[in-house]
Amino acid sequence: MNAAPDTRQMFEARLRAIGDERYHDKHPFHQMLHSGGCTPDQVRAWVINRYYYQSRIPMKDAAFLSRVADSELRRIWRRRIEDHDGREPGTGGIQRWLKLAEGVGLDPEYVASAKGVLPATRFAVDAYVRFVRDEPLLPAVASSLTELFAPKIHADRIAGLLAHYDFANDTTMSYFRQRLVEAPQDVAFGLDWVLEHAVTRADQDAAADALIFKTEVLWAQLDALWSAYVEPGRIPPGAWQPGEGLK
Amino acid sequence: MNAAPDTRQMFEARLRAIGDERYHDKHPFHQMLHSGGCTPDQVRAWVINRYYYQSRIPMKDAAFLSRVADSELRRIWRRRIEDHDGREPGTGGIQRWLKLAEGVGLDPEYVASAKGVLPATRFAVDAYVRFVRDEPLLPAVASSLTELFAPKIHADRIAGLLAHYDFANDTTMSYFRQRLVEAPQDVAFGLDWVLEHAVTRADQDAAADALIFKTEVLWAQLDALWSAYVEPGRIPPGAWQPGEGLK
Repeated sequence: MNAAPDTRQMFEARLRAIGDERYHDKHPFHQMLHSGGCTPDQVRAWVINRYYYQSRIPMKDAAFLSRVADSELRRIWRRRIEDHDGREPGTGGIQRWLKLAEGVGLDPEYVASAKGVLPATRFAVDAYVRFVRDEPLLPAVASSLTELFAPKIHADRIAGLLAHYDFANDTTMSYFRQRLVEAPQDVAFGLDWVLEHAVTRADQDAAADALIFKTEVLWAQLDALWSAYVEPGRIPPGAWQPGEGLK
Repeated sequence: MNAAPDTRQMFEARLRAIGDERYHDKHPFHQMLHSGGCTPDQVRAWVINRYYYQSRIPMKDAAFLSRVADSELRRIWRRRIEDHDGREPGTGGIQRWLKLAEGVGLDPEYVASAKGVLPATRFAVDAYVRFVRDEPLLPAVASSLTELFAPKIHADRIAGLLAHYDFANDTTMSYFRQRLVEAPQDVAFGLDWVLEHAVTRADQDAAADALIFKTEVLWAQLDALWSAYVEPGRIPPGAWQPGEGLK
């Protein structure tokens, strides 16, 4: 039996409900981070591991571009790579993240080396890159729609970090401030594209599953941080130990 | 500067030292499992998640075969697939694992569906399949050498489970008993192949890194189990909840 597809409006509501249930703003690590409950080393562990995610995003987007035959779609999507890698040396989201790394006392070269990243972070992030490289274009685009839920977490984070941590200032917060500008443009396009291209019920299911997959990628990263640096606080062999990589 | 390679003997010792430091027999989940400290639900969570690993091993070995031009090497390696998938219906390692699943009270169809597997388990296991599919043959073979360290863990497990759990008997332990026969043959071949083909220092480093990567794949699975079902015991959205999938 082929179920009828949801209307555009119902399908959008279905996608948004996935965020309500599964987006990583519900994870206690973020609550701890934003409320000032993290130790400096827990903040550093987050910065080191989240760097790996940021660093793979432009590779993920390049994998996507490499599969798109439509020049118009490539041109619009290409902005994501430019936002992360910058338009001239020393600019872009990855450089802004390294400013945050410096602000929390880490050597940016150590962070950029991706040494000490938790294996579970690498496995999750690499799964995302692989997904976008190997799966059909519709799930590949749909997996980016966690950005629907990002503006709130970025706004909470800026406010929470500024209120609670000495390292938070205009320089170290610049990554998140800039994402507040960039992410809404990206996601407006991505959401419209998915709503337009998910024609059948099977398409809609595939897009919803892709978004669930992506929430799992994000959630698993916070679970791994919690396990290694909060509770039980067992750092896997070879991963970052507090005291390493300081500037 | 090109460092001279280790002698065969030194290189083997280097590989074995990786097991001493990083193999997952050092993880407290195994200690808890083998000493009878796991609750029935913790044993079930382990069986469900470890099933996903077992189920992907023949896919990993097929990915390897698909890249090997040497018929002799393919023929020898093919036995691994046969061991897992069986030589006739109802036989093989995967079926034996499902006997264990039944023995601990799970519905084997639920376990075989791979529903409820932790996302972190999938990310780690899929990373292993990808590694063997994409990396050069030498690291691909070297990543299998965690089997060097497996006989001891299987022997400990059989003794520990039989001593401490009602579900342990000849049927449910048959997977591990059979691996005690198979794994030494496989690993003797794999070790010899790696020692023979890792000619330069760069080769040796790549093989050692591959073995480290594989220990991370195994360790990350136990960290994920611990995080979800032991401490803090926070089950990620969508993963198996105690009470589900019982027979």
